[in-house]
Amino acid sequence: MRPVEERPAASPYGRLDTATHEYVISRPDTPTPWLNYLGQGGYGGIISNTAGGFSFDRDPRERRVTRYRYNAIPADQPGRYVYVRDQETGRFWSPSWQPVKRDVEGYECRHGPGYTRIRSALDGIESELLYFVPPGNADGSCPCELWVFRIRNAGPTARRLRAFSYAEFGYFDAVSDQQNLDWSQHIVSSGREDSVILASTRFRPTTSFLGASEPPVGWTGDREDFVGRCRDLASPIVVETGEPTNSGSPRGNEIGSLCHDFELGPGEERGLVYVLGLTDHPEEIAAVVARYREQAEVERAFEELRADWSAYLGRFAVATPDPEMTEMLSVWNQVQCRTTLNWSRFVSGYETGLGRGMGTRDSAQDTLGTMHSLPEQARRTLTRTWGLQFRDGHAWHQLFPLSGEGGPGLAAEFPTWPQWFSDDHLWLVLATCAYLRETGDLAYLEERVPWADGDDETVWGHMRRAIEFTLANRGPHGLPRAWFADWDDTLNINHGSGKAESVWCAMQFCRTVLDLAELCRHTGRFAEAVRFRDLHTEMAGLVNAVAWDGSWYARAFDDDGMPIGVAGEDRHRINLNPQTWSVIGEVAPRDRAEQALRSADQHLATPFGTALLWPPYDGGDERVRGTSTYPPGAKENGGIFCHANTWLIIAAAMLGRGDDAYVHYRRILPLARTDADLFRAEPYVCSQNICGPAHPQFGMARNAWLTGTAAWAFVAATQWILGIRPTFDGLRVAPVIPTSWPGFEARREFRGVTHEIRARREGPAGAVSLVVDGRPVQGTVVPLPPPGTTTVRVEVVVS
Amino acid sequence: MRPVEERPAASPYGRLDTATHEYVISRPDTPTPWLNYLGQGGYGGIISNTAGGFSFDRDPRERRVTRYRYNAIPADQPGRYVYVRDQETGRFWSPSWQPVKRDVEGYECRHGPGYTRIRSALDGIESELLYFVPPGNADGSCPCELWVFRIRNAGPTARRLRAFSYAEFGYFDAVSDQQNLDWSQHIVSSGREDSVILASTRFRPTTSFLGASEPPVGWTGDREDFVGRCRDLASPIVVETGEPTNSGSPRGNEIGSLCHDFELGPGEERGLVYVLGLTDHPEEIAAVVARYREQAEVERAFEELRADWSAYLGRFAVATPDPEMTEMLSVWNQVQCRTTLNWSRFVSGYETGLGRGMGTRDSAQDTLGTMHSLPEQARRTLTRTWGLQFRDGHAWHQLFPLSGEGGPGLAAEFPTWPQWFSDDHLWLVLATCAYLRETGDLAYLEERVPWADGDDETVWGHMRRAIEFTLANRGPHGLPRAWFADWDDTLNINHGSGKAESVWCAMQFCRTVLDLAELCRHTGRFAEAVRFRDLHTEMAGLVNAVAWDGSWYARAFDDDGMPIGVAGEDRHRINLNPQTWSVIGEVAPRDRAEQALRSADQHLATPFGTALLWPPYDGGDERVRGTSTYPPGAKENGGIFCHANTWLIIAAAMLGRGDDAYVHYRRILPLARTDADLFRAEPYVCSQNICGPAHPQFGMARNAWLTGTAAWAFVAATQWILGIRPTFDGLRVAPVIPTSWPGFEARREFRGVTHEIRARREGPAGAVSLVVDGRPVQGTVVPLPPPGTTTVRVEVVVS
Repeated sequence: MRPVEERPAASPYGRLDTATHEYVISRPDTPTPWLNYLGQGGYGGIISNTAGGFSFDRDPRERRVTRYRYNAIPADQPGRYVYVRDQETGRFWSPSWQPVKRDVEGYECRHGPGYTRIRSALDGIESELLYFVPPGNADGSCPCELWVFRIRNAGPTARRLRAFSYAEFGYFDAVSDQQNLDWSQHIVSSGREDSVILASTRFRPTTSFLGASEPPVGWTGDREDFVGRCRDLASPIVVETGEPTNSGSPRGNEIGSLCHDFELGPGEERGLVYVLGLTDHPEEIAAVVARYREQAEVERAFEELRADWSAYLGRFAVATPDPEMTEMLSVWNQVQCRTTLNWSRFVSGYETGLGRGMGTRDSAQDTLGTMHSLPEQARRTLTRTWGLQFRDGHAWHQLFPLSGEGGPGLAAEFPTWPQWFSDDHLWLVLATCAYLRETGDLAYLEERVPWADGDDETVWGHMRRAIEFTLANRGPHGLPRAWFADWDDTLNINHGSGKAESVWCAMQFCRTVLDLAELCRHTGRFAEAVRFRDLHTEMAGLVNAVAWDGSWYARAFDDDGMPIGVAGEDRHRINLNPQTWSVIGEVAPRDRAEQALRSADQHLATPFGTALLWPPYDGGDERVRGTSTYPPGAKENGGIFCHANTWLIIAAAMLGRGDDAYVHYRRILPLARTDADLFRAEPYVCSQNICGPAHPQFGMARNAWLTGTAAWAFVAATQWILGIRPTFDGLRVAPVIPTSWPGFEARREFRGVTHEIRARREGPAGAVSLVVDGRPVQGTVVPLPPPGTTTVRVEVVVS
Repeated sequence: MRPVEERPAASPYGRLDTATHEYVISRPDTPTPWLNYLGQGGYGGIISNTAGGFSFDRDPRERRVTRYRYNAIPADQPGRYVYVRDQETGRFWSPSWQPVKRDVEGYECRHGPGYTRIRSALDGIESELLYFVPPGNADGSCPCELWVFRIRNAGPTARRLRAFSYAEFGYFDAVSDQQNLDWSQHIVSSGREDSVILASTRFRPTTSFLGASEPPVGWTGDREDFVGRCRDLASPIVVETGEPTNSGSPRGNEIGSLCHDFELGPGEERGLVYVLGLTDHPEEIAAVVARYREQAEVERAFEELRADWSAYLGRFAVATPDPEMTEMLSVWNQVQCRTTLNWSRFVSGYETGLGRGMGTRDSAQDTLGTMHSLPEQARRTLTRTWGLQFRDGHAWHQLFPLSGEGGPGLAAEFPTWPQWFSDDHLWLVLATCAYLRETGDLAYLEERVPWADGDDETVWGHMRRAIEFTLANRGPHGLPRAWFADWDDTLNINHGSGKAESVWCAMQFCRTVLDLAELCRHTGRFAEAVRFRDLHTEMAGLVNAVAWDGSWYARAFDDDGMPIGVAGEDRHRINLNPQTWSVIGEVAPRDRAEQALRSADQHLATPFGTALLWPPYDGGDERVRGTSTYPPGAKENGGIFCHANTWLIIAAAMLGRGDDAYVHYRRILPLARTDADLFRAEPYVCSQNICGPAHPQFGMARNAWLTGTAAWAFVAATQWILGIRPTFDGLRVAPVIPTSWPGFEARREFRGVTHEIRARREGPAGAVSLVVDGRPVQGTVVPLPPPGTTTVRVEVVVS
């Protein structure tokens, strides 16, 4: 393993502002576009620190508003741009730096929850753009976003300035927009009505629009007219000349470029609000734009947004001795959790919004990070996702949110391979149990949800059917069969013999039946509770009998029935997941559990997290297929999969190893990575993976924002390190904190009651005792308080 | 109809060099990228006048070599670039203008058949790039292209120069490359072996490469390294600093940038050859690159290319009083015909090579333009396409060339609509008859070809089955049923009632059975000849009984059985196709035929060609669906469809109206369009469509190169205006030339015999008499000469 250079104390690109919880980016040239999300699952989009990105209404494939050119040169274009032009000198620039890239002064981008604010100055002119989606639009009605532009003359003389907006509309169907140029370039046209530019076809009402709070002095609706032949967005002809064309686009490429003049005396400041949106009711557009002519309405909308996020974030807050961990758990990890719940893996800097819908297991796991804050949305998500389960118990892998249609996901590209995964349906059970523990909403078990192949069943029936599917489809060792893959999409070991089995999935099954047994005991289904415990004993016994390799657990059995992830192999001798889940699934006896985690540490640990497997494949390997398409150290082929690292944190905590759990957490804590030129990704959110030690870019993160890491990192830290986890009987507080910590404080909503938790360490061991509202309680569960209670105080002593 | 401004006498962007037959572009900033094609259906690609474009090996979807960003900003990037840097001053530029776009001197792009040569000069340094695919690669073995770079110091002092190549490799699977960024960006890496940069994955042998004939002084294999963060191809950091990184790319984006130094004394010139390619046998790459180290080998390859094209073009040449027509028919129209035969509608400036395969009817029609020059390739194309026919007689609409798999084409997007077209199978019959007339290869009728759904049948059996399918699927008026559409893909009138019928397809059927009757007479199948004649009589009678609207023929009957394209309608009162095909299909009595063409002229004619229908739809119309998605005047919705205009030329000629035929030909003759800023498209090839009079961009052409217009414009001009058309009994020469023409000369290969044709006008009427090798013959057919004859001289008098 290569040595890791000392990390710098501070990132050269930005810092967290602990007063506002904004991430403040101080240079435009970040190693990758550092993104934020606007909107809440309805109208929304991505925005980078230089205003790059695009917008869509609910579904980025079917209802795209603006274009974004992924992996293009120049990078991170187009976006939500305003050009400012000095009418005296003809000099022009972009307050967001892109796309003109002039050397502005005082550049600063502040990403906050649901909004982004970018400001800079040039030649004595200060300007700022604040971007957000008014929260009233979350339901999809009147969908739009606001660009609040402010411009100020900081100099001593009067100035004449002209501003040009730039929003590049695409055809709503993003695949046609990219592939069927002959058609899509002919059918959309643009025009102007009052202070609004509209783009639409003649055969659907769907209309994109960009309006402004002040009447423009001119406009341009055609991209080629605006940019000019053989030019680019750094120097569009309209901006260079200062002359809008005052004409729309009959076909080709439509844009929204409104032109406004600002005559500013010394110290004078002016504002302008742009309204960008998409609607099937074009008759409503004028009213939508008119609404935001009122400054007060814009401020009200922004306050509403802030209040919405405050309410969301207010249900969990923490203060720990680790400031980065404190900030992540209190703000950005929760922001990311909500984002994954809203948009699954659909749109990011890496996911283009074209191919993938919402993931079945993705959405199920995404609810885990928001159970405490958005239980109703979690319930709706689970219900929708249960609707993807077939009567035999397996589930579609994916859901297209607008149509509600399910699909096999990646497996569709390999139609002769199995079209479902080993684990999708079990995640749904686990997430539903988590929902029930959080809310106590046992009536949910009786809700009827359709099967994907007709008829319906209660949620409880769906849950049982999931277990039956796994039981009915086992391989020669009695372990769950490998289908297209299990959690690891790239471990494609089922080639038709019926012998391929997933050891990891057996462990996932063990955790699932334990959760069900607990649920059954709580709901009085005692016989079923016994059966689920027995299933656990049986499956755990099988795993221990066939999958223990001496120092760790094997990962799987291949299509010939031979073990994968064992010491005798050249490649992939050890895999992280069966070690962590031998603990999480309560499969391993104590000695094996400790040995398994020691082995993982010995073979897989790195300063940037723990690799998924070792040694990586070096070239295609037919046994595992997908994994071996990656070069050594990338993604599933020996990369550091952050999602899998969160389970290592949990496993260590479950074994009472607080120091280990914390070390594992810190290694993948993005705010702790100040070596931004190596890490590259946004430091305020988790990435899906980090290149592993076998990769030349060891330490580089990829696939930020939309990853199961978000929810699981939150669960690992809050429920297992801090130990604050819901049970049917009350909130458990059982910290497994590092020995160096003197304690922590947390505020946690649970079933409508604010739990004010103060933990302090009084000794080096891990024993925990609780005092609730001044009275000692037995065990580590805070009893459910009497109805009407709003707050309980929990004093925790770790000794 | 709006007035048309006077067209300029010469295009400001370029001209045809009649000595070399090259189209010479003299300004880089053409209204659109003016493209050429490299390669012959195997390895190849597109290249613009500023070297933009991309390459692929046989299939642009599965085996792409380099990237191209369609509809992006900056436009027409990337491409096959070389940067030149003055090592003394640090100034750098691109000989092809793009991507640096510095003001070079003497810029000139010469597109020739199968090659493109771009030259320019700056600061006394002249450079030239010649691009071509060695023709030995047409079969897919050793697939590569050459960039022959020459650089000359035209100044008085010695100069130190450094050149950097730029080829941007993508992942071979172009859809994954665009949509699955997370995977495709992780799996490809690049490295260097000797003077070659290689890009490949670890799990397949498929390897892209860029090599050079001289050892480089440095190299860069990573796009981000080369371009630099937040920069673009106009000023890559490596070129700006002059320092290659000498490193590959571990993942991300791979490029081939080789760096070479040139120390040039006054007047000194040097050369360098770059070799770009893709192979599944990477062990062969070194030998391929080594081959082109020899200047002689490069020259031999280029001469071979020229010879191949000369042979191809040599089978037909003409001299007419119309220089643009002469050049088109002798060179560029034939170049375009071969290009469509090779690549159907797969890759162009408008078709991204992602979604479409080869078209069944497209390929069938494409053979019509190359029957005389590439009869064997035409036969292979027909055989492959007959393999797409089902046993019931209908055919797949599309073919994916690498897999041979058929598909329903656009219909796949509408799975509940009919999945086949009314006309695909009939085009195959028509093209096969044309092949037999050209070659006399009657044994082809006995060749066995599989059905798409199993088993096989002779070509003759396939042809008959096509007729049976149409006969078995007729609507209430006895006309062929409309399926997904007929020739007009967007006329989607079949909504399930079974009543929708295509009048045009009935006329196409009439032409088809006439051709079959003639074939049967020639092959002694007399009873069948009678049956086909009877079928013609019956179908023509039905059309005349139900589809004559008083002054023209209706276009179709809709799903309620109501006529479309009739005078009583608000929109789409008249459609061009049934008027022309009433003549081509020999459906209309003389008076109706003349009236139909007069009506078309009256309602549809414009100075830029004849519109497809009038008045256009203005917004979605459920009766016709697709057509009405276009705005008025665009494409099928009242645009000028050039393909349909070729049939108007033929129909006019069939009625003996030589002046009309020529007017129709001139209107759509691209070389006649010198108003390049309006026309926009390449003036040396036909475009598919021109915006019609209802469109704000009336006169603008779209979809150049890959269109059925190519073959049909050639057929219309050569077989109907010049009147040189193959028959079973010999080459017919029956000119229908304009009265103003004193005559023309032509050379035409037919069944191995060169026909030297000299036509002269001796009177204003259309009577034609022939003298063959000095002896008058009866009629207009040159009798098949005795075996061993190499040349016949045909004197034609039109009086």
